[in-house]
Amino acid sequence: MPEPIDRLADAVARGAHSLAIPADAVILLAVSGGSDSMALMHGAARLRQAGRVTWQLQVAHLDHGLRPDSADDASFAADAAVALGLPVDVRRADVAALARGEGRSIEDAGREARYRYFEEIAPAGALIATAHTADDAAETVVLNLLRGGGLAGARGIPARRGRIVRPLLAERRATLRAALDEAEIGYREDPSNADPSFLRNRVRAEVLPLLEDLRAGAVDSIGRFAGLAADDDALLDELAAAELARRLDGEGGIDWHEPPPVVLGRRVLRLAIGEPAPSAERIEALLEAVAGGRGGLTIELGGGRSASVAHRRIRIGLHP
Amino acid sequence: MPEPIDRLADAVARGAHSLAIPADAVILLAVSGGSDSMALMHGAARLRQAGRVTWQLQVAHLDHGLRPDSADDASFAADAAVALGLPVDVRRADVAALARGEGRSIEDAGREARYRYFEEIAPAGALIATAHTADDAAETVVLNLLRGGGLAGARGIPARRGRIVRPLLAERRATLRAALDEAEIGYREDPSNADPSFLRNRVRAEVLPLLEDLRAGAVDSIGRFAGLAADDDALLDELAAAELARRLDGEGGIDWHEPPPVVLGRRVLRLAIGEPAPSAERIEALLEAVAGGRGGLTIELGGGRSASVAHRRIRIGLHP
Repeated sequence: MPEPIDRLADAVARGAHSLAIPADAVILLAVSGGSDSMALMHGAARLRQAGRVTWQLQVAHLDHGLRPDSADDASFAADAAVALGLPVDVRRADVAALARGEGRSIEDAGREARYRYFEEIAPAGALIATAHTADDAAETVVLNLLRGGGLAGARGIPARRGRIVRPLLAERRATLRAALDEAEIGYREDPSNADPSFLRNRVRAEVLPLLEDLRAGAVDSIGRFAGLAADDDALLDELAAAELARRLDGEGGIDWHEPPPVVLGRRVLRLAIGEPAPSAERIEALLEAVAGGRGGLTIELGGGRSASVAHRRIRIGLHP
Repeated sequence: MPEPIDRLADAVARGAHSLAIPADAVILLAVSGGSDSMALMHGAARLRQAGRVTWQLQVAHLDHGLRPDSADDASFAADAAVALGLPVDVRRADVAALARGEGRSIEDAGREARYRYFEEIAPAGALIATAHTADDAAETVVLNLLRGGGLAGARGIPARRGRIVRPLLAERRATLRAALDEAEIGYREDPSNADPSFLRNRVRAEVLPLLEDLRAGAVDSIGRFAGLAADDDALLDELAAAELARRLDGEGGIDWHEPPPVVLGRRVLRLAIGEPAPSAERIEALLEAVAGGRGGLTIELGGGRSASVAHRRIRIGLHP
């Protein structure tokens, strides 16, 4: 068995290989100070130190300001980066105020503040690596199943999105923690991770252990499923985009003569309408209206938008 | 609140409506004597008795011969059908012997024996209705997630397959049981449903209640997800079939110039190869070989089959 620090390096290397991260990449590591991101930082630093890559690494930590001791986490992450000789940037956000101001959950506001910060400070051409694990991905799949919704929800966490990469997405959290413990590398536990009022924490603490008990390897299976679902979902989005492009009539209308299969048609319309996403009922009403071939119908789409339907042609716009 | 028997009739009517089952259909009801199939039989009989449909109903029960008292279940189901004035057919199979003979699980052998029997005795033009519920569908989704695999696994249980229809697929088992209990309609409990050595029973007894406890409506959400995943999967299969048809060169070869997107290409190849399904590794090797454009390569596909690849053309056949 390799040294624990080399097991962390190997985990990062496996992810970097499957993501085709170049050996000379510039990578911003998102480090909260928790076990996953400490594993990522130590594994990546070890890879470089051993000469297996020539990555140019830097570390970023966003202090969410949600707990009295959150500044301690920031110091902890910064000190660990400095000890590895890595440049580090720490910033503080008032996530609670952001959430209140934007009328959204603390989790959503925190996520958005983090990624905005990482995108802002990562140099041009750099990748941004986050430390999400197979456990995070499986939690996300289960959460999305609980909430309903289609394939897009089952995707879990993508291994790559834009320049954000997740090299540890195939690794189990417990394996990373065991290596950290053996290597005597400390990490901070976020006490809110134990709060059962967050649904994700109950999925982590109750559902995943039960599924693993039913069948060893369940978390990995869910991760594989999420990967395949993501592939299929992306393909369908691609096909829907091509179908929409073919149907645009150059005058702001979508030609619906010879309609596509219904399941593809739904995606084409969702794509044409964009955000905020219309409800499933509205999409069905629109499909029905255009299939009917009648003229002069208007379907509300929400968000101040509507679709007018005439002669198997759809026109989407803002209310006049 | 309607009478309990009418709640069962309404449940069957909802499913029949979404399946577009004609009001004058001939339907073979698969009745084990358990709660779900007793709900189906009583609901369907009530619909006809109330003049809401003119269905021609008949009942079939396969005695699996797996328990000493399995003949009692058969009598129970037959007596209940007769009491409702429905013609009934009972047959006995030695499922344990079938499983041994074919080297497969008792569950698989039982399922195959049941459907073979139903198909055999259902008159031409008749539908075959089974009593699968939202609980069964959610169990199947969770089981398939545990076992890994892609979208096809997430489909759960299809509402229709050939002439098999499942009108209760959107109904919760507990709701049906409550109506049966109120209507004082008895049913048989299969003691093997309580055997925790069957993975499905642990999913039913432990996973689904936990998910519902985390979020009320979770089982329905999983069912909706399964329906959407089934739609997407069927669409991709349809697109793959069209893509394969376009690429067949009339001489037994598949033209791979201007290859399709990789995710679609995998499906095209799976479809071309057929059963037994090749492993994911073999599909990847084949995709890689044809992408390389080299000639004279042969890829083993298992089941005595291989693919020869030359000049971006694939030829699948049995070993010479």
